[in-house]
Amino acid sequence: MKIRQLFDYDTWTYTYIVWDEATLEAAIIDTVLEKVDRDVQHITELGLTVKYLLETHIHADHITGAGPIRKKLGGQIVVHKNSNSECADILAQEGDEFKLGEQTIRVLHTPGHTNNDITYLIDGAAFTGDTLLVRDCGRTDFQLGSNEQMYHSLTEKLFKLPEDTLVFPAHDYKGFSQSTIGEEKQFNVRVGQQKAYQDFATIMDGLNLPNPKRIDIAVPGNMKCGNL
Amino acid sequence: MKIRQLFDYDTWTYTYIVWDEATLEAAIIDTVLEKVDRDVQHITELGLTVKYLLETHIHADHITGAGPIRKKLGGQIVVHKNSNSECADILAQEGDEFKLGEQTIRVLHTPGHTNNDITYLIDGAAFTGDTLLVRDCGRTDFQLGSNEQMYHSLTEKLFKLPEDTLVFPAHDYKGFSQSTIGEEKQFNVRVGQQKAYQDFATIMDGLNLPNPKRIDIAVPGNMKCGNL
Repeated sequence: MKIRQLFDYDTWTYTYIVWDEATLEAAIIDTVLEKVDRDVQHITELGLTVKYLLETHIHADHITGAGPIRKKLGGQIVVHKNSNSECADILAQEGDEFKLGEQTIRVLHTPGHTNNDITYLIDGAAFTGDTLLVRDCGRTDFQLGSNEQMYHSLTEKLFKLPEDTLVFPAHDYKGFSQSTIGEEKQFNVRVGQQKAYQDFATIMDGLNLPNPKRIDIAVPGNMKCGNL
Repeated sequence: MKIRQLFDYDTWTYTYIVWDEATLEAAIIDTVLEKVDRDVQHITELGLTVKYLLETHIHADHITGAGPIRKKLGGQIVVHKNSNSECADILAQEGDEFKLGEQTIRVLHTPGHTNNDITYLIDGAAFTGDTLLVRDCGRTDFQLGSNEQMYHSLTEKLFKLPEDTLVFPAHDYKGFSQSTIGEEKQFNVRVGQQKAYQDFATIMDGLNLPNPKRIDIAVPGNMKCGNL
């Protein structure tokens, strides 16, 4: 399995192109509307066939490019069934599997940032969306986020994966591009070293983050898969 | 061999931590002074021993963090012998090899952006500095840059590497993180598809780029390895 990581400087979003080398079937994870032309060109140059457009959740900070890419290159848009998407092809849930050539994409429901977060597991890599970030985790204070669910997703689901599982987040704000489950169990500042739930919740409740600038247009735009 | 890519949002610089899994001996490529604390913490968390601090060239857009990291974590600073560095431990040249545990780092002299560019080859990956960028190449209009040398470095040295060689650049301005030699031979907009030298030179001579904002402090700062 091959992974190509792409970055959007305006919203600090990571997009991933993942493909099976044998068949060149690809999945595109968390695209950004303003980067559709770049991504379509790159996918085309790599000679890939888009089979799935995977969303880790309904984003609040940027609008997905999944709809426009589907129009140009095909593929099925996958979101979690909790997301009330108007435009997805597949409403996924915990335990679902999708084939990508010889690879299998497995769906873990990892809510907490929203109620519809998916971690996609592919060949020893976890695409953790805004649930697990490098040394960090997503905020829990809007979009049906929940400290309890986030703690459970991190400690009871993601931290149960093999320690050498690669972690690829949907965002990073310090210049990190990847991590491993083993590192995060040890060094994640919010939940590493078996931090107790109450200590985790105290951190999360004290963040006092401003709302994302574009939340009012991003969430409805994402319900339409970026087909504005 | 393991690679961790780190990014500096202010200067669009990629830093790489490369290590041998068997011995945990590491090389750090192209650090950024303002990111020394982040990098030192990350290297420490990964449990690595710094053996080499590799500079792909004397940068004009940012000041290296190699000197401060050497003070904190040890390791030998490597630059090309043309760079007139006041502080490096090793002045490298074409064909030099350094051992990193079970891995070998090989030095290719790939001038054109400056007269002291090195591409470091490690286990099927090429860290190409500002010589080969994703779909692009570094500018040639200052620091003893040269269209002729850049064209030669790209077409006669880097494009002679195996096509599946991974390309990790020192910068990217469109959100790309890596490429391969095969892709660049085909899709590099400045020199791909066997573009003739004169066509390449016409593109380069027409760029009319402004000088990097920090060139006046970056170059002398880098001659001191960031020990200001």
